[in-house]
Formats: sequence, C-alpha cells, structure tokens
Amino acid sequence: MIKHAIQDVYPEDLAHCYGCGRLNESGHQFRTGWEGNQTATYYKPEAEHTAIPGFVYGGLLASLIDCHGTGSASLFLHRKNGHEPEDGVEPPRFVTASLEIKFTKPTPQNETLKAVGTVEEIHPKKFKIHTEVYAHDEVVAAGVVVAAVMPDTFKAK
Amino acid sequence: MIKHAIQDVYPEDLAHCYGCGRLNESGHQFRTGWEGNQTATYYKPEAEHTAIPGFVYGGLLASLIDCHGTGSASLFLHRKNGHEPEDGVEPPRFVTASLEIKFTKPTPQNETLKAVGTVEEIHPKKFKIHTEVYAHDEVVAAGVVVAAVMPDTFKAK
Repeated sequence: MIKHAIQDVYPEDLAHCYGCGRLNESGHQFRTGWEGNQTATYYKPEAEHTAIPGFVYGGLLASLIDCHGTGSASLFLHRKNGHEPEDGVEPPRFVTASLEIKFTKPTPQNETLKAVGTVEEIHPKKFKIHTEVYAHDEVVAAGVVVAAVMPDTFKAK
Repeated sequence: MIKHAIQDVYPEDLAHCYGCGRLNESGHQFRTGWEGNQTATYYKPEAEHTAIPGFVYGGLLASLIDCHGTGSASLFLHRKNGHEPEDGVEPPRFVTASLEIKFTKPTPQNETLKAVGTVEEIHPKKFKIHTEVYAHDEVVAAGVVVAAVMPDTFKAK
C-alpha cells in the first residue's frame, strides 16, 4: 500500500535489517512512505507472531515502531534536503537512540497493522517520531522513537 | 544457562509467545530465571537478526527486554507468593503495559546477550522491571518495562 518506500532506496550494505531491510529474506521487510505530511508503514503479522493465541506479541510492535521511526526520520530529512524516495537519490540513514511504547489495547491477529508517524526535528541530526499503530481503526500501541543520523563508525564496518 | 525458567511452568495455553513461549517453535524461546535477587535471560541472536551487517537489530533487543520483563515480574510475584519455578506450581502471568529502551551501544553479533533485571513493586498487580542487556560485559541497552497481571479477558480468549 506504500508505493515509494524509503527502504527501497537504502544503499545495499544498509538494506539487511531484520525489520526493514529489503535484502533480509527472513525479516519483516517493513516499507515506510509518505501519506501527506505523515509517514505510514503497513504490516500484517504472521501466524507465529503470537503473544497468546489470538493476539500479536509486543516485540513485533516494538520492531514495527522502531523501523517505522528510523524510516520516517530518513523520509523527513530527505524531503528537507529536497528529495523524495522516487528520486532514487541515496537517503540519510538513521539509528535508534531510544524507543518508548505504550501498549494501549491487545493487538488482534489476522489484521493489517498501520503505523502512522509524525516527525519532529529536535536537533539537525536528531529527530523524534511520534507513532500510533492501528489495527482495524483502533490504536493498539503508541510509540516515541528518537532517531539519530547514523554515525560514520557504523558505516565503516 | 538458566536451570529453572519461569516460562517452563507457564500453562500450555499461555506458552505460545513468539518471544518466550516454549511451544512456539518459530520463536526465540527466551527463558528467564533467578540469579540471586536479580533475574536473568540469555540469548544468542541468529545471523538473520541483523541491523546492519555485524550488529543486532533493535527489535530483537526490544523483544528480549519485553519478555524478560514479564518473566521477571512473574518470578517476583511467584516468589512473593512462596513459590519457585521448580515447584511446578502455575505462576502468575503478566502483560506489558509499557516498554522504554535506550540503545547505549551498537550490539555486536555472534555474542550471547545477557539481560539482567531488578523488579520493583509499584502496585500489588503492577511491577516495574529495570533491565540492562550485556554483550561481552558491556551494557548495550537499558530498558524499563511496566508489567501488569494478565487481565482475565485475555485468558478467556
């Protein structure tokens, strides 16, 4: 449901994340794009992603909020720099400094989850992403991610 | 490295969590037990649990801290009630109300991670678990989980 995702244009060596790497075949391959001035990521959990039968486990929601957060920060700074994912220009890559989640309702299985984010700049290299995760039009979790531009020490590895 | 884990005695219908359910064959099967007055969970991430090559992705750490938190709360309340995991008595089960994580260092792959927790009672049915995750004797992430006794509405499902 996302046409142009920021993860589609991450450089190859940074596209192996279990959460959002398009080259990680075992992973979730989350894709994050703009919907107006908000960012969105859709994902339908697998049957095995259970907490107790019928409900999605918290770790999946944490992964979704985390990667949605870094992807949203990348979208935001890329747009600030004059680019959109469909340009094909390499976007800035982020790491997560912190993650806070409130689990507001049990998350039903067999539903496509939608994470919706708004990005706030708190420093030229640091962004706060406020995310709500919806299942069937109800908020099931709310999260705040602080994402920082990836240090060069990571890329050197 | 944990001999008697609280997850070993969760009732069968609550043992399917992707993070810590002993009956979820696709999942991580985290096991949490006492080490003195602290709780501990050990886990060696799989090769696919990558953020960027060489480092573990944040969602895995979030899952570990989350399930370690609910397991720790269960151990704590069970002990308060006079029981240890090796009794075979069914322990109380918890859900996560909130989760906060600070990622303090990149988490290297190919290391066994150790989550160490201390439990604080903040209400007879609500506990706060302070966790540090170590890789090779360095703290790579610190988390706080608020865990609440599982509501009966969950168990009815």
